[in-house]
Amino acid sequence: MEKQLTKQNIGVGVAGTGFIGPAHIEGLRRNGIQVLGLAEVNAETARTKAAELGIPRAYDSFDAMLADPDIDIVHLATPNVLHYPHAKSTLLAGKHVVCEKPLAMTAAQSAELVQLASQTGKVNAINFNIRMYPLVQHARSLVQRGEIGELFILQGSYLQDWLLLTTDWNWRLEPDLGGTLRAVGDIGSHWLDLMTFVTGLRVEEVYADFKTFHPVRKKPTRELETFTGKLQQSVDYIEQPVYTEDYATILLHYEKGVRGVVTVAQVCSGRKNRLFFEINGSKSSLAWDGEHPNDLWIGNRTEPNQIVIKDPSLLASDVRSIASYPGGHAEGFPDTFKQLTKKVYDYIFAGDFNKQPDFPTFADGHYEMVLCEAIARSAKESRWIKVG
Amino acid sequence: MEKQLTKQNIGVGVAGTGFIGPAHIEGLRRNGIQVLGLAEVNAETARTKAAELGIPRAYDSFDAMLADPDIDIVHLATPNVLHYPHAKSTLLAGKHVVCEKPLAMTAAQSAELVQLASQTGKVNAINFNIRMYPLVQHARSLVQRGEIGELFILQGSYLQDWLLLTTDWNWRLEPDLGGTLRAVGDIGSHWLDLMTFVTGLRVEEVYADFKTFHPVRKKPTRELETFTGKLQQSVDYIEQPVYTEDYATILLHYEKGVRGVVTVAQVCSGRKNRLFFEINGSKSSLAWDGEHPNDLWIGNRTEPNQIVIKDPSLLASDVRSIASYPGGHAEGFPDTFKQLTKKVYDYIFAGDFNKQPDFPTFADGHYEMVLCEAIARSAKESRWIKVG
Amino acid sequence: MEKQLTKQNIGVGVAGTGFIGPAHIEGLRRNGIQVLGLAEVNAETARTKAAELGIPRAYDSFDAMLADPDIDIVHLATPNVLHYPHAKSTLLAGKHVVCEKPLAMTAAQSAELVQLASQTGKVNAINFNIRMYPLVQHARSLVQRGEIGELFILQGSYLQDWLLLTTDWNWRLEPDLGGTLRAVGDIGSHWLDLMTFVTGLRVEEVYADFKTFHPVRKKPTRELETFTGKLQQSVDYIEQPVYTEDYATILLHYEKGVRGVVTVAQVCSGRKNRLFFEINGSKSSLAWDGEHPNDLWIGNRTEPNQIVIKDPSLLASDVRSIASYPGGHAEGFPDTFKQLTKKVYDYIFAGDFNKQPDFPTFADGHYEMVLCEAIARSAKESRWIKVG
Amino acid sequence: MEKQLTKQNIGVGVAGTGFIGPAHIEGLRRNGIQVLGLAEVNAETARTKAAELGIPRAYDSFDAMLADPDIDIVHLATPNVLHYPHAKSTLLAGKHVVCEKPLAMTAAQSAELVQLASQTGKVNAINFNIRMYPLVQHARSLVQRGEIGELFILQGSYLQDWLLLTTDWNWRLEPDLGGTLRAVGDIGSHWLDLMTFVTGLRVEEVYADFKTFHPVRKKPTRELETFTGKLQQSVDYIEQPVYTEDYATILLHYEKGVRGVVTVAQVCSGRKNRLFFEINGSKSSLAWDGEHPNDLWIGNRTEPNQIVIKDPSLLASDVRSIASYPGGHAEGFPDTFKQLTKKVYDYIFAGDFNKQPDFPTFADGHYEMVLCEAIARSAKESRWIKVG
Repeated sequence: MEKQLTKQNIGVGVAGTGFIGPAHIEGLRRNGIQVLGLAEVNAETARTKAAELGIPRAYDSFDAMLADPDIDIVHLATPNVLHYPHAKSTLLAGKHVVCEKPLAMTAAQSAELVQLASQTGKVNAINFNIRMYPLVQHARSLVQRGEIGELFILQGSYLQDWLLLTTDWNWRLEPDLGGTLRAVGDIGSHWLDLMTFVTGLRVEEVYADFKTFHPVRKKPTRELETFTGKLQQSVDYIEQPVYTEDYATILLHYEKGVRGVVTVAQVCSGRKNRLFFEINGSKSSLAWDGEHPNDLWIGNRTEPNQIVIKDPSLLASDVRSIASYPGGHAEGFPDTFKQLTKKVYDYIFAGDFNKQPDFPTFADGHYEMVLCEAIARSAKESRWIKVG
Repeated sequence: MEKQLTKQNIGVGVAGTGFIGPAHIEGLRRNGIQVLGLAEVNAETARTKAAELGIPRAYDSFDAMLADPDIDIVHLATPNVLHYPHAKSTLLAGKHVVCEKPLAMTAAQSAELVQLASQTGKVNAINFNIRMYPLVQHARSLVQRGEIGELFILQGSYLQDWLLLTTDWNWRLEPDLGGTLRAVGDIGSHWLDLMTFVTGLRVEEVYADFKTFHPVRKKPTRELETFTGKLQQSVDYIEQPVYTEDYATILLHYEKGVRGVVTVAQVCSGRKNRLFFEINGSKSSLAWDGEHPNDLWIGNRTEPNQIVIKDPSLLASDVRSIASYPGGHAEGFPDTFKQLTKKVYDYIFAGDFNKQPDFPTFADGHYEMVLCEAIARSAKESRWIKVG
Repeated sequence: MEKQLTKQNIGVGVAGTGFIGPAHIEGLRRNGIQVLGLAEVNAETARTKAAELGIPRAYDSFDAMLADPDIDIVHLATPNVLHYPHAKSTLLAGKHVVCEKPLAMTAAQSAELVQLASQTGKVNAINFNIRMYPLVQHARSLVQRGEIGELFILQGSYLQDWLLLTTDWNWRLEPDLGGTLRAVGDIGSHWLDLMTFVTGLRVEEVYADFKTFHPVRKKPTRELETFTGKLQQSVDYIEQPVYTEDYATILLHYEKGVRGVVTVAQVCSGRKNRLFFEINGSKSSLAWDGEHPNDLWIGNRTEPNQIVIKDPSLLASDVRSIASYPGGHAEGFPDTFKQLTKKVYDYIFAGDFNKQPDFPTFADGHYEMVLCEAIARSAKESRWIKVG
Repeated sequence: MEKQLTKQNIGVGVAGTGFIGPAHIEGLRRNGIQVLGLAEVNAETARTKAAELGIPRAYDSFDAMLADPDIDIVHLATPNVLHYPHAKSTLLAGKHVVCEKPLAMTAAQSAELVQLASQTGKVNAINFNIRMYPLVQHARSLVQRGEIGELFILQGSYLQDWLLLTTDWNWRLEPDLGGTLRAVGDIGSHWLDLMTFVTGLRVEEVYADFKTFHPVRKKPTRELETFTGKLQQSVDYIEQPVYTEDYATILLHYEKGVRGVVTVAQVCSGRKNRLFFEINGSKSSLAWDGEHPNDLWIGNRTEPNQIVIKDPSLLASDVRSIASYPGGHAEGFPDTFKQLTKKVYDYIFAGDFNKQPDFPTFADGHYEMVLCEAIARSAKESRWIKVG
């Protein structure tokens, strides 16, 4: 008989301590959940980072972590290429898994993971953390209650500047590690997931226009962590051709005649991490900017526009609990990890895995892979591609 | 020998007093230029409106105005369908002309007007007034001086909500009066003109996705002025099919590998008249929102972002004079008419018509027609269409 | 019998063509009213400026303008010290008058002008133009209809940066020309007038704290126009002691227990002309920023906050007509002159001078003088001073 | 010999689990520090809350927690009245202490605590957490490096709406529990601390104007947690007179002739928790709004204004490490607890208590008490009061 997992006894393992691993760890700890063990690229890094982060066990390898019978669940915060094999082996080891996005390198892989998760009956989550901003959830509640009316347009962008310069480098630029899509896979996928989460609408077909503004970049001879390039000292470089997109605009035909368009780019000076969406419906519009996540704009035709501040007393009652602090006390990016972790672990502790999860799962991760493959194909073939 | 036109002796005629005619009249008067005569849809309306607006002469018809030898220049502020015939007859009558956009209903017509203008040697202006916002001109100066670097992306939108409801009606919805393009022709054309004005780049090919969310609208039995529908009392309606686009997104391939995308829609609740553009280059980005025209955002990678306030002391020296008031004294939409009028009439008074105009001309108006026809064709044929 | 004044026959004279005179002239012309004559500091300047501005008559002196029987009304746009003598002689000459603020150099003078205006029965207006922003009028309508509830706090500031540097100079710095108050008189008076206009509340007592950060400034040897110093080339300077305040904060006890506070300063880098007010009541709050005059913020406790955009369809029906352009078409500072002019001249043309004016009059100008004298006295004596 | 405290062995006790206690607990856990024990208003509440929050030990009383030899440090997150006795007994028990603000009910008490802390040599911190926003620290760095120039004005406000209604109630309204100052003590003290932190300037004298808009409030018969009143169901009330201020404006004369003014109020509809400051200097200005803490505005005279986004690569090198996440990944209120905790515990683990702490200490808490008493006295006596 399976042990009843509790906040006190659950054994949590984390793989990866780059940009995003520590965000998972904080999210766990804020929920009063301890991290038991850490796997890293090698045994030495694991030991160093475990000591630094106050994690009791450091493993020689990912497989060693999986082999630890005290580990009940694994968080995958590794480069994209490792998500599929690690998620697969975690599930096969009979453990729950929380995977960073993207779920895999191909839709075939992600489909396999969805099936495997279903077979093993293990809890499977994918970290579409942006869903967990209180005002994103409030937006969803407004749409679902019909406050926006019949939907017309989903528009927006996700813009960053950390890959602006030819000297900016990161593993995400290498298809072998990051995938054949880059801007779309890394950040576009968040936007696409968010729109389906908020509206419940699926994409019927896509049309994409891509561009690589820097076909050659200067790759440093030693590795860099994501985002840290901006603070990098000058080092030795080698010139490296880049085939992944710096820019993409995707036209989207959603179900029910809804039109969509999103622009993603990582070469937009001054935009640090700006996910923006606007939803236009027959009654009202919604707009939200991830760099100012505590405000939600509601656009009206016959009344003044509105700004909803993240304040529990202003949020829809069904999403209120996702705001931990009172109105005007800004919450942010790390809080989304806290909230997603809470939902996943509450679900695990409740123990009823037939219940519909209230967090993103491998099925959502797979859907993004299918969508991204259609987008990549459209960009290549310059035509509308049906999704799924 | 032609009379030397001066602020004191020039005879100005205006056709049309809907939404935009009075803006022309204000623009003239602020420059100390009198309006001599008015033509309207009929003699009676002309008399009533002329009295109301303090214009000395009211004509029985447009032709009667043209026949008045005291009239030296005509402003066309009539429904779109009349631009071509009126511009043509004005030029043929040997008079200067300032035409509202679009210049014509087809590119063939606008080409003819460009040629005719050239033959007659008359001053020909088209009212792409948005070029005349001080911070738009400053943006152009920054781009031209290389402050933004090599250009990558031109992105943005032009969104309104005055045609949100099925009961919203206006002559622009009728192809016979407004043209076969609506949102693109009315407002998209402003955005497209602005981007070419600011960057100097021409479009090589376009791909468009259109949607009409309200295929049937309720047309009131009596006529309404543009924008006034929002204040309309309920009246009798007839159901009328609508074929023009409520929504369009246009993918743009500019010269030099620059990518562009713009979304235009007139059914976006809460967006009253929001023209937004963002230009991303290898050094910096620019962003401007026409609803807050006195701020220009500059996005930087290694320094803080900037907000340029419309302040003569902060503007590029070559565009400084287009700001009439000191910093922090907001200028707006009507001021663009003042500035465009000033440029056109200064040019006329200077009398050297071989000089390159510093205002938009029929050539610019024709370029928009060519572009719009390519867009319409792309939307119809679902493929990239080369421009020109 | 007095001639019935009409838009066609009224004879308008303007005195002064510095920063603000041209704003009056534009305001007149946009209403279809001609400017007949101009007076300036001397005959030569009058002639030059009249030609430049397209004004038919240039006078040798202010008195010569008054002596012109065709002049029915005079706009005073001269340095502060001249307002009282010129307003007085205009009224005594039996002409209407529109005076720039402040109305006089002392409350005794302004009281005399109020009395004189009453005796002569002439129309008397003072240019508190900021009242004429559509959203200021909408704010007033909301307060008066009880939408804000019982009023608690009126807070705000008026900040500029054009006198930041010790090399910034203007006649307003000289008490003989500008008055013994500077920041408070120039800009604070606008804020104070606005609060009384919007709320209907009078001040019972004031407490003021002043500071002159630059006790010595460098005065250029030749004269500069207001605000143009920012664009000035270096010139010869003389050191000049300055006694007027760079900074003031004024505590205000309004009627009915309402509390107020305003900070005014002209040495605030980056603030070009930022008049900000916030009104807090038992139901809602209002906030408005004069650098972004087309938005009005409404703060709510139990519903989302709101942003009212200047859109005729969103404005209170009683103030709708003060917005000339549709929603999203920004209006600004020059439009306030158009609207104030319209109200004054409509009143004049209607001819019933017993009717309550819907524009600010000498009585309002006098009230500001009384208030400013109390403020100056409080700053000097460091104690609360009762007003009036 | 004292035990060398480490992240692994330190014994942390927390008192209080209202609004702010959990914020401390999260801050600890995010730093990999466990909470060992909890004290609450009574044994039962302690047990319930400890179980809920996953804290191993629940004490019968605060004294019981102090008596636990495994406890090395205590966080005081209790109502204000308890800060002094608990801080005192904690120090006397030979333990370190992190106290919520205000430090005490009187300056005499806080002086005693400063002295006691000095005598015992124990680490003493006060939770002026707002200092820990990355852009606040960047602002301080800019001021200290002379980027703002000579300082002129410190202005701002701290506005909330959670005590707007007469039915809003909280222990902070009761002088016996919260102190004789309310808005000033609760939130004004944060603003005052921040200004001294950022500028290094002390206040020389103060002048205060207070107002209680609701002299009688409706107190519910059962207790409410801070801020939760907004979500409260209707309950039974009793009418209770209120003597503490709903509103205060404080004029401040800082050292070196710098002027200050701050308005604090808890009845400002729509302002949830808006701490705003603006600092004007001879070179530039700074402005920051705690509801949008990831932006810092820099106002310039001769260059465009700037917006610094919280991005490690844009922050001063000496404060960079206080931003945990890359640019555009918003951080917020809970992150300030993480950063303050980090500084306090790094200091403790380093073990050199002669070193100048880089976090706020009891000396800072005492300074606020002295300042607040001067403010209260000024409000009562309507005159300037010297500080200290």
